[in-house]
Amino acid sequence: MERTEPKTLPGFMELLPGEQVLFNQMKETIQKTYEKFGFLPIDTPVIESTEVLLAKAGGETEKQLYSFTKGDSNLTLRFDLTVPLAKYVAMHSNELSFPFRRYQIGKVYRGERAQRGRYREFYQCDIDVIGDGELNIINDAEVPSIMYEIFRKLGLDDFTIKINNRKILNGLFESINAKENAIDIMRIIDKIEKIGEKNVVGELQNLQISQENIEKIVKLIQIDGTTDEKLQALENLKIENQTYCEGVTELKEVIKYIRLFNVPEKYFTVDVSIARGLDYYTGTVYETFLDEHKSVGSICSGGRYNNLSEYYIDRKLPGVGMSIGLTRLFYILNEINLIKTEKKSISEILIISMIQDLKPAIEIANKLRQEGINTEIYFDDKKIKAKFKYADKLKIPYVIVIGEDEIKTGELTLKNMETGEQKREKIEEVIGELMNNE
Amino acid sequence: MERTEPKTLPGFMELLPGEQVLFNQMKETIQKTYEKFGFLPIDTPVIESTEVLLAKAGGETEKQLYSFTKGDSNLTLRFDLTVPLAKYVAMHSNELSFPFRRYQIGKVYRGERAQRGRYREFYQCDIDVIGDGELNIINDAEVPSIMYEIFRKLGLDDFTIKINNRKILNGLFESINAKENAIDIMRIIDKIEKIGEKNVVGELQNLQISQENIEKIVKLIQIDGTTDEKLQALENLKIENQTYCEGVTELKEVIKYIRLFNVPEKYFTVDVSIARGLDYYTGTVYETFLDEHKSVGSICSGGRYNNLSEYYIDRKLPGVGMSIGLTRLFYILNEINLIKTEKKSISEILIISMIQDLKPAIEIANKLRQEGINTEIYFDDKKIKAKFKYADKLKIPYVIVIGEDEIKTGELTLKNMETGEQKREKIEEVIGELMNNE
Repeated sequence: MERTEPKTLPGFMELLPGEQVLFNQMKETIQKTYEKFGFLPIDTPVIESTEVLLAKAGGETEKQLYSFTKGDSNLTLRFDLTVPLAKYVAMHSNELSFPFRRYQIGKVYRGERAQRGRYREFYQCDIDVIGDGELNIINDAEVPSIMYEIFRKLGLDDFTIKINNRKILNGLFESINAKENAIDIMRIIDKIEKIGEKNVVGELQNLQISQENIEKIVKLIQIDGTTDEKLQALENLKIENQTYCEGVTELKEVIKYIRLFNVPEKYFTVDVSIARGLDYYTGTVYETFLDEHKSVGSICSGGRYNNLSEYYIDRKLPGVGMSIGLTRLFYILNEINLIKTEKKSISEILIISMIQDLKPAIEIANKLRQEGINTEIYFDDKKIKAKFKYADKLKIPYVIVIGEDEIKTGELTLKNMETGEQKREKIEEVIGELMNNE
Repeated sequence: MERTEPKTLPGFMELLPGEQVLFNQMKETIQKTYEKFGFLPIDTPVIESTEVLLAKAGGETEKQLYSFTKGDSNLTLRFDLTVPLAKYVAMHSNELSFPFRRYQIGKVYRGERAQRGRYREFYQCDIDVIGDGELNIINDAEVPSIMYEIFRKLGLDDFTIKINNRKILNGLFESINAKENAIDIMRIIDKIEKIGEKNVVGELQNLQISQENIEKIVKLIQIDGTTDEKLQALENLKIENQTYCEGVTELKEVIKYIRLFNVPEKYFTVDVSIARGLDYYTGTVYETFLDEHKSVGSICSGGRYNNLSEYYIDRKLPGVGMSIGLTRLFYILNEINLIKTEKKSISEILIISMIQDLKPAIEIANKLRQEGINTEIYFDDKKIKAKFKYADKLKIPYVIVIGEDEIKTGELTLKNMETGEQKREKIEEVIGELMNNE
């Protein structure tokens, strides 16, 4: 027979089962936490009409897209979950209840150059709250507090959610009549950690910005101290611009509420240099960094936008949301050995029979499964050593052995695979023990 | 602004949140049950190299495929989860532990003509057990018993898993020297319920099959009675052919073990006319029907195959598996009003504040969420009626009201939205009550 070489495309993550279990546990933690805050699931198609998907982008990101035709249709695989959300809300705006709190966890596609840790197919885990006409600023605090809870549950300790408000920089630029230069200025101040204050000043001078205004910019982005000191410093700058003042007021509100949501100071900070691109977000913006691994970039970002579905319908739908790029996060945490999860196997118990008749093994399995205990029976007629090796390789924590002796006495042999400890017990005792372990 | 009409492609299911909750609950039931039987998750890419995906099919199903090129690569969206499994096992055969019990739940793509209840993107929920060289027949009984448990948990009562063994028909055809006519004969006997025995006989005569052999065929497919009577009848036919005898022996074993797995007689039956296509399955085959809605076809099918990865590697890997087409199943059950689920909302509780300061509401929410209770706060400054309407529309079962009075007394107002019952309680009492409800 002629054979085809089995291979997976480069840039596509495909895990062995042991790692898949860890991945799925992370995914479930994210999902369950989103649900704990009352977010509703939606599940949009992977394929959309190209016209619908690019209503906003207008083709500018075309190179990265998976686009193709089928029959007369121009189709594209979704490249994020935000555009499908905008479409969904536009289509169903009369059937949804607002504020609409939705989460979506799904794969998205970008044909980027394949490189280590960059994937062409990856999971995004999004939450957004969409208001009808208006949306309370408290949402801007609840959303990052959900992310805080998720990262703590994933076992992470050294991370910081950086919070800013786009109106602060925008207001400053307005006040110094530098709105047209905004993109260039942003690009320059973004480099301050890398090139230092002096070079930033030099580059700003090249843009023909006056010395006085350069000082204002540098003063703003160099603001430091505790969160409250930063907020105070923003007010002390006395920038007389309505947008700026709105930004500071909103930022203060967000900080006030994020504290009420019990997020400890250690895990969030105000960072006025965070901008998240220039045209989409209009208020609060977030980025999240691993303190010890800043170079991997933000692991969870988002912000507030004025109008989710403006490219589809004429209805003002402001929103705020954040997104976790799970595939990349899993890759990073795996690389730096930071994945902490409760269980490493699906089965809690493997039943091994020493006798030909598998009836007793099946009956025991029925009982365990009835109690909700994940149970597997080893059916194959192999040597006992091979059977134990299987449990070992799959990291199954307990093995039950059934032999002539066990049948006679009605007691099973329960082996703890981690400690090696072995004891004889009745099935009811085994169940009680395993249930307590959960 | 120029606007694009927001629309979802025909043949792609996109649910409103209320239905999505039900869909996801079904999906979770399936996943949790697969895990209870110790199946390991895998997650293969939606996009594969066309060459890899069509290693077997050789292009014959091309019309239904979503195929396209990107750069130099010919790519295709997966059309099932079996071929990706074959690829996966071939790639990782030295790293996996056999028997390899895997489940995969994911979307697959077929560009079929869009029609009611037929989808171009749909979820398949697969389990397979893959052996290395050999695989115990008990697996052929455990797999349908898992499906039995799932359908019961989904609240279905009137369904039947039909079981057959391909060797029985194959053996009969061998014994009457009609192997070359097998496909035609199968096609004819498949129609017996529709066209009746007389017409079947007539069509078989057209194939130049002798009267004696036609009688054998008709006798076989007309076998009736209880499961045990059918098994006895299969033996009584005295067909002297090794394949036939193997088939009967295997079928008897499967029936013996499916009973040991506690599947009641009502939910399975032997049906020797079930064949499931002609070239893939080699032993046990299954189809599952809703007794009252047979016309919708099989809702869960599968079987035993000799060699999973033969198009990729030279290693004998026999397997047995079944698959639920979840998107179609959801559509059908929804149509005939058969979806029974425990909960209809994500949030268990909505907190409504009558006072401006949302601090008490947030503190209550923090406490409830700490206990794992899905909780939502209504932040917007709307009339109380609008807030209750929101809870109602989202089918949230409980509402907590916080007003001046509640702050003074330290007791909350808890309203059961279904009964309308309302009472004053301390937060600890509320928590106790909601926890007991689960």
